[in-house]
Amino acid sequence: MQPYALTIDKFLDHAAKWSGEREVVTGDAGEAIGRIGYAALRERSNRLSGALLSLGLKAGDHVATLAWNTQHHLEMHFALMGAGLVCHTLNPRLTVANLAMMINDAEDRALAVSSNLVPLLIELAPHCPTLEHVIVMDDVHGEFSLRSARVWMHDALLESRGAPARWGDFDENTVAGLCFTSGTTGKPKGVLYTHRSNYLHTLRSLQGDATALTGSDVVLVAVPMFHANGWGMPLAAPTVGAKMVLPGRHLDGASLARLMRDEAVTFAVGVQTVWLGVLDHLDATGGELPALKRVLIGGSKCPEALIRRMEERLGARVQTSWGMTELSPMGTIAPPDESSTGASGRPPMGLDLKLTDADGVTLPSQRGTVGHLKVKGASVVARYFKAETDALDADGYFNTGDLATIDEDGNLTICGRSKDLIKSGGEWINPAEIEDIVGRNPAVGLVAVIGRQDEKWGERPVLIMEPRRGQLPDVEALLGSLRGKVADWWIPDQVLWVEAMPLAATGKIDKNRLRADYASGSIVVHGGN
Amino acid sequence: MQPYALTIDKFLDHAAKWSGEREVVTGDAGEAIGRIGYAALRERSNRLSGALLSLGLKAGDHVATLAWNTQHHLEMHFALMGAGLVCHTLNPRLTVANLAMMINDAEDRALAVSSNLVPLLIELAPHCPTLEHVIVMDDVHGEFSLRSARVWMHDALLESRGAPARWGDFDENTVAGLCFTSGTTGKPKGVLYTHRSNYLHTLRSLQGDATALTGSDVVLVAVPMFHANGWGMPLAAPTVGAKMVLPGRHLDGASLARLMRDEAVTFAVGVQTVWLGVLDHLDATGGELPALKRVLIGGSKCPEALIRRMEERLGARVQTSWGMTELSPMGTIAPPDESSTGASGRPPMGLDLKLTDADGVTLPSQRGTVGHLKVKGASVVARYFKAETDALDADGYFNTGDLATIDEDGNLTICGRSKDLIKSGGEWINPAEIEDIVGRNPAVGLVAVIGRQDEKWGERPVLIMEPRRGQLPDVEALLGSLRGKVADWWIPDQVLWVEAMPLAATGKIDKNRLRADYASGSIVVHGGN
Repeated sequence: MQPYALTIDKFLDHAAKWSGEREVVTGDAGEAIGRIGYAALRERSNRLSGALLSLGLKAGDHVATLAWNTQHHLEMHFALMGAGLVCHTLNPRLTVANLAMMINDAEDRALAVSSNLVPLLIELAPHCPTLEHVIVMDDVHGEFSLRSARVWMHDALLESRGAPARWGDFDENTVAGLCFTSGTTGKPKGVLYTHRSNYLHTLRSLQGDATALTGSDVVLVAVPMFHANGWGMPLAAPTVGAKMVLPGRHLDGASLARLMRDEAVTFAVGVQTVWLGVLDHLDATGGELPALKRVLIGGSKCPEALIRRMEERLGARVQTSWGMTELSPMGTIAPPDESSTGASGRPPMGLDLKLTDADGVTLPSQRGTVGHLKVKGASVVARYFKAETDALDADGYFNTGDLATIDEDGNLTICGRSKDLIKSGGEWINPAEIEDIVGRNPAVGLVAVIGRQDEKWGERPVLIMEPRRGQLPDVEALLGSLRGKVADWWIPDQVLWVEAMPLAATGKIDKNRLRADYASGSIVVHGGN
Repeated sequence: MQPYALTIDKFLDHAAKWSGEREVVTGDAGEAIGRIGYAALRERSNRLSGALLSLGLKAGDHVATLAWNTQHHLEMHFALMGAGLVCHTLNPRLTVANLAMMINDAEDRALAVSSNLVPLLIELAPHCPTLEHVIVMDDVHGEFSLRSARVWMHDALLESRGAPARWGDFDENTVAGLCFTSGTTGKPKGVLYTHRSNYLHTLRSLQGDATALTGSDVVLVAVPMFHANGWGMPLAAPTVGAKMVLPGRHLDGASLARLMRDEAVTFAVGVQTVWLGVLDHLDATGGELPALKRVLIGGSKCPEALIRRMEERLGARVQTSWGMTELSPMGTIAPPDESSTGASGRPPMGLDLKLTDADGVTLPSQRGTVGHLKVKGASVVARYFKAETDALDADGYFNTGDLATIDEDGNLTICGRSKDLIKSGGEWINPAEIEDIVGRNPAVGLVAVIGRQDEKWGERPVLIMEPRRGQLPDVEALLGSLRGKVADWWIPDQVLWVEAMPLAATGKIDKNRLRADYASGSIVVHGGN
């Protein structure tokens, strides 16, 4: 058989050749402000490669992007990866300190930034000595300069230095992308994606029981491209020649609803929060989205009632999924033709799952029991960026750090983080189960259960909550709600509340900080029993 | 990213784990005579590997199969490929001489045979000195022995020597299969499939605009597994956990219609001839196939009127396709949600096409012009079995030998074989276009246009036909039907007819023999002008 490197420049080549007029639409606050066919996008992106190489950037160099989902950002992705450069996506919602740490760790030589993020960049740049070039993308308002790096405007750069570049032509194991994990459980860790891993992830995600994307679909990519490869959509859409709608910075309900209606979006991809915003907007305005067929959600468990409400109001099937940065990111997904009960679906061909006990021994039954979730596949991390050892067990599986169950039909449900488990009297307590029950109390805003050291039991659970504004939960009622639902010895010994729960950049509760604050006594406790 | 070899044993492992109860049904003359879940099939197949290895077969050895589509045959496929043996499929409709040539060329050490093909095997075996073992599959009637090879019964072998075997655990470029081309244009040539090429072919074929196969489908595999990997279906169905129906030897309309109805087949795969048989049967009996949604056809161009008739009578969408043994075999396919006009669809991601002129120069326009079709991809042959050079051009493309056009929407139509082109006065004549027009005459059964040597023009076209029984076509009317539709100088100088057109094993006209017979004057001419 022919040698044929699995490199992702082939996706855009294919789109340009077979779906050349199919559009990529860029939105801004709900308005379509730009549209381009795949053939023209391929041509611009390829010439942008030439421009980037003319700046002295070389295959293997790291280039950061700090940007929203736009045509320029997509052009930059393909321009970088096609030429063998590494595209390092950054989350603009992180702190300057976090971003600087990542840029320095990655030794990024250049950075492409959305124009409305230039203020953040100006704050950031002095802390990033490796940056030689900055490319300003999207609509540009005014010029500026930096002390340490040369500033280019995307379109002007393309015009002055754009030149056809040779794409691909390297080994499929060449690194294509770099993304740091959210760091909710410690220091952010970098994941290096290869062309092969992205290529196979894309083909895997296109299966009929996964995204089932086709050339007649119109895909709204409301998950940011900086967030775990935009769930693979920016690669999957051109691969099948689907029209792609990139919403820009604004993910509010009104903006998304307008774009979805105007562009006749059939398949919408993003975390459930953004669809709740769309729901609220539709409820308030009485709008409809007649073209919409499916909504892909992920990120966190979605209650079944909420899925039904979304399906009813949006007139579309909701597909649940689970993934993580380390998985490129797709893990499991519910098929389009099945009604999801809130579980996260099954793995498409190409991802192997197993559940083990705390010692890494495969559970005798892989169905109906909670276990530590391990995964294996061509798009799964083996070793974190700059790490000295692989993050794999003896069988080559990666430990997700998640606790999960698999039901009789094979559907996965994540039910906690293994690091959050509390060992009391030699037995495990799963905080997520307690949080799930307590969280249903209408007076409770956020809730976290952590372990405290205990002389007799080793650890004992402590419940910490942030009440809803103006509410004061009844502690006895809260603990009473747990009785009969969890073992008696799982019930927390102590209940505290705080004014504001510490959150990580992704919006998840930062349990590390909570544990540290609790241990050091510095936690601001406003009450307790 | 993790090392993760793309080996096809993973398909059956995945099916066993996630669709373990989903069935593989074997039919015989329309009756379901066996059914097994993927988990049990995986267990049997894996232990069959152990049994085969216990016979002294070693990774890399070639083992032939001479069999219909049955559970035993499928078990044998996975048993061979999972253990690193090479599965060499043979077409039972070839001659003993042809089969012996292939077995000897492949140096097959063993052969697995359907029990009802034992008479053919007994004829064949004395000509195949490399065969050490014969495994008799399917229902066994009586025993027999061979002088040169030891005979085993499939189930008895599994029972006496079956043992768990280690699957995979080798490089993805390991050879998995061998299939000889039909040899309509010369000596049959062997194509070696690798695990990687089969794995990627499977993922490619599962795209939503290709087979779009899902776990809720029930697939009837009416294309023989010995014919270009059964169009990839025996690998694709377990990959997504689709129920698979293997019809056995009998592909007549009554047998297939009964199986399709009884097993609620949703997706039926095979050449158009078999569906015409089903149509006739339904017309005669008034039956319906309510579960059927799609029929995938290929092999030769299908007139649009016939597609519409099939769609109406079967109540299903017809997907057209084009492929060849050298492509594993899928080339192009019409999407499920488009009404096919008879063209063969577009290439899914992962297959690159180009049209060139006779000198191999890429045509400036790839749309609307007839060109020589070249292809590139991870599942495309690079070098034939035992060939000393690659069959590729300077850009790494394989020459299909076909002439084709691509319309504005990207749909491919094959319009002749480049070897059949006739060069007259320095310009090309495409016999397929002439044959297409003449073939519409109701008095004409089969028709072929070949070139004869000509002193003045180099070559000139000769039309040879086999009239329909009892008919005698009017030569002047035939030639007249060409006027205005092809250039005047394309019109054949000579029209002959024969009692029986020479056919290759696949049923296609054997033009090589026709040319040789014509040149040697040995053609049996019953008339002419």
